[in-house]
Amino acid sequence: MACSTNALSLSLSSKINTKSSSDLNANSSYFFLRVNKPAKVSFRGSSSGELNPGRVALSRPSGIRGRICANAIPVMDQSVGEKSSKAPTIVEVDLGNRSYPIYIGSGLLEEPELLQKHVHGKKVLVVTNTTIAPLYLDKVVDALTKGNPNISVENVILPDGEKYKNMETLMKVFDKAIESRLDRRSTFVALGGGVIGDMCGFAAASFLRGVNFIQIPTTVMAQVDSSVGGKTGINHPLGKNLIGAFYQPQCVLVDTDTLGTLPDRELASGLAEVIKYGLIRDAEFFEWQEKNMEKLLARDPNALAYAIKRSCENKAEVVSLDEKESGLRATLNLGHTFGHAIETGFGYGQWLHGEAIAAGMVMAVDMSYRLGWIDSSLVKRVKDILLQAKLPTAPPETMTVEMFKSVMAVDKKVADGLLRLILLKGPPGNCVFTGDYDRKALADTLSAFCKS
Amino acid sequence: MACSTNALSLSLSSKINTKSSSDLNANSSYFFLRVNKPAKVSFRGSSSGELNPGRVALSRPSGIRGRICANAIPVMDQSVGEKSSKAPTIVEVDLGNRSYPIYIGSGLLEEPELLQKHVHGKKVLVVTNTTIAPLYLDKVVDALTKGNPNISVENVILPDGEKYKNMETLMKVFDKAIESRLDRRSTFVALGGGVIGDMCGFAAASFLRGVNFIQIPTTVMAQVDSSVGGKTGINHPLGKNLIGAFYQPQCVLVDTDTLGTLPDRELASGLAEVIKYGLIRDAEFFEWQEKNMEKLLARDPNALAYAIKRSCENKAEVVSLDEKESGLRATLNLGHTFGHAIETGFGYGQWLHGEAIAAGMVMAVDMSYRLGWIDSSLVKRVKDILLQAKLPTAPPETMTVEMFKSVMAVDKKVADGLLRLILLKGPPGNCVFTGDYDRKALADTLSAFCKS
Repeated sequence: MACSTNALSLSLSSKINTKSSSDLNANSSYFFLRVNKPAKVSFRGSSSGELNPGRVALSRPSGIRGRICANAIPVMDQSVGEKSSKAPTIVEVDLGNRSYPIYIGSGLLEEPELLQKHVHGKKVLVVTNTTIAPLYLDKVVDALTKGNPNISVENVILPDGEKYKNMETLMKVFDKAIESRLDRRSTFVALGGGVIGDMCGFAAASFLRGVNFIQIPTTVMAQVDSSVGGKTGINHPLGKNLIGAFYQPQCVLVDTDTLGTLPDRELASGLAEVIKYGLIRDAEFFEWQEKNMEKLLARDPNALAYAIKRSCENKAEVVSLDEKESGLRATLNLGHTFGHAIETGFGYGQWLHGEAIAAGMVMAVDMSYRLGWIDSSLVKRVKDILLQAKLPTAPPETMTVEMFKSVMAVDKKVADGLLRLILLKGPPGNCVFTGDYDRKALADTLSAFCKS
Repeated sequence: MACSTNALSLSLSSKINTKSSSDLNANSSYFFLRVNKPAKVSFRGSSSGELNPGRVALSRPSGIRGRICANAIPVMDQSVGEKSSKAPTIVEVDLGNRSYPIYIGSGLLEEPELLQKHVHGKKVLVVTNTTIAPLYLDKVVDALTKGNPNISVENVILPDGEKYKNMETLMKVFDKAIESRLDRRSTFVALGGGVIGDMCGFAAASFLRGVNFIQIPTTVMAQVDSSVGGKTGINHPLGKNLIGAFYQPQCVLVDTDTLGTLPDRELASGLAEVIKYGLIRDAEFFEWQEKNMEKLLARDPNALAYAIKRSCENKAEVVSLDEKESGLRATLNLGHTFGHAIETGFGYGQWLHGEAIAAGMVMAVDMSYRLGWIDSSLVKRVKDILLQAKLPTAPPETMTVEMFKSVMAVDKKVADGLLRLILLKGPPGNCVFTGDYDRKALADTLSAFCKS
């Protein structure tokens, strides 16, 4: 990863390595360039012993950027086809004494020891929702208690959907935790999609000023994005995720089998975030997606496992470099400022998060093109892959310019009144996080996508 | 500070130094002994230049324990009588990159630069209540804006009282922050007592996942205890402070002039926490209080400033050693488990926090005596000083044993079902935090103080 605080004077071939983003500030423009470096690949946690180092070395795609924080045993190579091993792939999120592993694999909920080694104390509260509870709650309780009779597991089942990601629902988690007499040595387990993960994480961060928690994401969206990196929180009627905490889990357990019950629309929604990683920082991954989108939509287990792993590696690396979002981490929000406006303006839960983000990415890409920062070919490729993934490429027709503006004004990336955006700039896989852009381009993009 | 993980086998003269409390665990008994070491006294931040090092060296009382983290310019010596300087006393809370100063002195709200250097961004939200706003809000706004026209200051005025320390009131802070379009580079200012500090701090911790904040405590309670150390939060109907965060301010500004408007009952309530510091770790301070209680009640400014400074030094030191309350910090809760039960059982806001804690300390001392851990003379001294401070020495008559038990069961110091308590043990100034005590002593204490 290379970045500079003076992007406009840099040519694309500039390669300035930096370990920190602390010198980033609000009003500059930042250019994030890819640096090709050999990836550091290490082995850990494999119980099968079947993995072949030769294959691993081959299977790691080139083009992963410098200072790799995500050490992984790859699930598969780019060709997709071999059967994946039962041993979990492990992607490490490197955050000093708050580091934690992401386990990715099939059948992981049938390996109790994986989960149990991250449980603290004798009481566990599983936070889940009405959709997921009938499918996986018993399985998770079994995994938590098998061979471990001292553990008592409570649960709280919340209504399903983004519109319930609010303070009222959060209080149900606290009520249950207090009624169940959970203490500081308890563990919260988030079992579900991004809404459950965000709410359970914030509840864990705030209950008794902080208890341990574990993420078991059951949607692609949560597996590739929201469960990793410690962003937790709830919505406010005036904006998404405005109340929350940075709070890291003990581990993230991605059992890819849980995707078997995921509705098609939810699957596609998650793929919006997968596509995002390609666009902002991983051009080869983007190319791989263009070639393998059919397999992903057909739920080819190996293709899904690979997309999840590579997404988690990208996310883990960004989070390790910039946990509290001083700069670099904001690039993970490509399309999110426009997308949050759609979610808030159109009403939480009308569109899925990834659907709103897909439309938002098209808008960000449109604006990048209007600024002269990217080629028209990239605009086309973004639209094409989103269409292929059956995702929207424009906001709902009821969205107005004013609706966008009013929600964007309270975006978390506003600093001292200036709205900063993530925009693409340069060849695919490069982006900027900047408040330094022509306001006309933003106005033109909003006009182009809104009827009024 | 010396502590051991096996208190019962240690004689009182054992002095094992440790820098960390990380080896403390739930089921052991901990013994905190005083170690006499010369205090490190340093100068900083004085604008008057009038301070006399000779006087400073003399004025530092002996008996401050090892690894001093609170570097202070003392306001006065133990004799009490000289006029205090306008230059603030500074007690430093040493928490690495989250360190911050506590400024203590008269007229500090008339020194804008002191406050302004800790403000981040261009927007400030002052959180205060209906009692304090008419008295000090204008003064604080002046201090924030004087010579600094770029700053815009918003305010939210909450109802006054512990019974409003809940989620509903907290949402008013978020509403105001969002309506005012505060961004991540904003600063929250808590202007008021402990309730305001706790709520504003938790709001700051959670708004956009964390913005900067400043504490301006206006009660003795907040100045000597709640504003220092980063514990923030709100109450749940089933227990006090069950929802919150550890979140440190940018600075704490104690303008002792604000005590001029404090009701007598509030003043006495704050003195309960001052007395606590003497009991748990500072015997000389306790003796000083016994001699100077009349001056404190008469609001002698020098006596109050000295009590605040010495209390903050004690708190800063404990917090520096154990920010997240793995062990040592829990000792600051002497009397609080019983006290919280009184507050919750009797109804928030019926008794002031310090009043409940005073009764709670008498109960903890009673139990310590029943266990044979302290002399009867100390029991008498504790009752005497609390009576002198016009504080309760027993719980309200309506409290029953069952009410105590049900609230104590959800206390934050319960670990794996075991209630740990802070009890006095040994000569004055020594205490233990332990779950290793005879349950009969607890039952006897509850019976002795409750009619049913």
